[in-house]
Amino acid sequence: MTADPSARRGIPDATVARLPEYLRALTGFAERGITSVSSEELAAASGVRSAKLRKDLSHLGSYGVRGVGYEVDHLAYQISRELGLTQDWPVAIVGMGNLGHALAAYSGFATRGFRVVALLDQDEALHGQQIAGLPVRPMDTLDALVAEEGLAIGVIATPAGSAQDVCDQLVAAGVSSILNFAPCVLVVPDGVDVRKVDLSTELQILAFHEQRKALASAALGPVAKGVAK
Amino acid sequence: MTADPSARRGIPDATVARLPEYLRALTGFAERGITSVSSEELAAASGVRSAKLRKDLSHLGSYGVRGVGYEVDHLAYQISRELGLTQDWPVAIVGMGNLGHALAAYSGFATRGFRVVALLDQDEALHGQQIAGLPVRPMDTLDALVAEEGLAIGVIATPAGSAQDVCDQLVAAGVSSILNFAPCVLVVPDGVDVRKVDLSTELQILAFHEQRKALASAALGPVAKGVAK
Repeated sequence: MTADPSARRGIPDATVARLPEYLRALTGFAERGITSVSSEELAAASGVRSAKLRKDLSHLGSYGVRGVGYEVDHLAYQISRELGLTQDWPVAIVGMGNLGHALAAYSGFATRGFRVVALLDQDEALHGQQIAGLPVRPMDTLDALVAEEGLAIGVIATPAGSAQDVCDQLVAAGVSSILNFAPCVLVVPDGVDVRKVDLSTELQILAFHEQRKALASAALGPVAKGVAK
Repeated sequence: MTADPSARRGIPDATVARLPEYLRALTGFAERGITSVSSEELAAASGVRSAKLRKDLSHLGSYGVRGVGYEVDHLAYQISRELGLTQDWPVAIVGMGNLGHALAAYSGFATRGFRVVALLDQDEALHGQQIAGLPVRPMDTLDALVAEEGLAIGVIATPAGSAQDVCDQLVAAGVSSILNFAPCVLVVPDGVDVRKVDLSTELQILAFHEQRKALASAALGPVAKGVAK
């Protein structure tokens, strides 16, 4: 563990969990041609308070310049490097239903440091079919993918019923990081990281704001509500 | 705004953004039959520090019991109520490509307080086709959906090129919360909330841990590496 610069500098897990959010906000600023942002602007775009943001970024040795803020491109690079995204991570997607199809075609992975190197499915009828420029492979090619492509991250996009079986096969082949889109809890041995994606998380945040708007609108009464609309 | 209990109690936006994560962790505990958790356990499952978790939950008036912790079901209910999830939010999904198909069939929405009431697409060829038990409708039925179903939340699952056009139509019909899966930035008037989903966020967190494992493994050398594997 001593060889890990992040662990040495002690970046808290909670900070790590927020770094992708900062990177997403910075990418948004860059897309709109904005080259520098204040900590307040970046904090607002990331949904945190600016004091928290400044503390998080100080763990990366990034402090911004008073009156100028942070340079968008440079900070995005620093965060990318910290997250290990300046190298190219080979990813395999397992489960070629609608979600697997959508993920295979998702352009956001490539621009974020991930390369989809393989698509797999347990269904023999799909093997050899081309999706987003890649052939669907059988599960028994996993060992070769780990050995030849350095595959380290597996994405599970199967139904809940087959997710644990697929997970076990990924782990047996040596894949040590798993992103689970299936709506179920996976059991893995120590040393394997699993993250579960819940597509309703963002909807829940919207619902909170929607509720707030509805209550404010009700308080203003029907006339003002019509105007506010 | 004075009618809004959350605003009165002043729940910070950053806390709101973490509530879905706590709810997800609590659902995970409940699925495994666990009825009470300590703040440390819940914090670890949510990726925050326990002091932060306790402070966040204190905004909800929830303090846990020393030596016992939090009751899983009750805390999940309190968070759901705060997020406005104890009522049923009608949701429409626009764009019936692979991602739209996957979202239409996603069982996680229904269990989180969201009801998919309509599927829409600009492509006439799809109209009337049944997906996950609902017919695909044309965009000009949006006004009726807002009036009759109380539709308040729209999910955009179109390609980037048509996302702004679809967003404008949702806003014109009176939809005031938008969840954007298209890889682009949307422009909306004041009073409309937009959240952008980046499917690579969780992959980025995995990449960080994967990098840490790779560096630790390299430091231990080839022999120990073999053992650690």
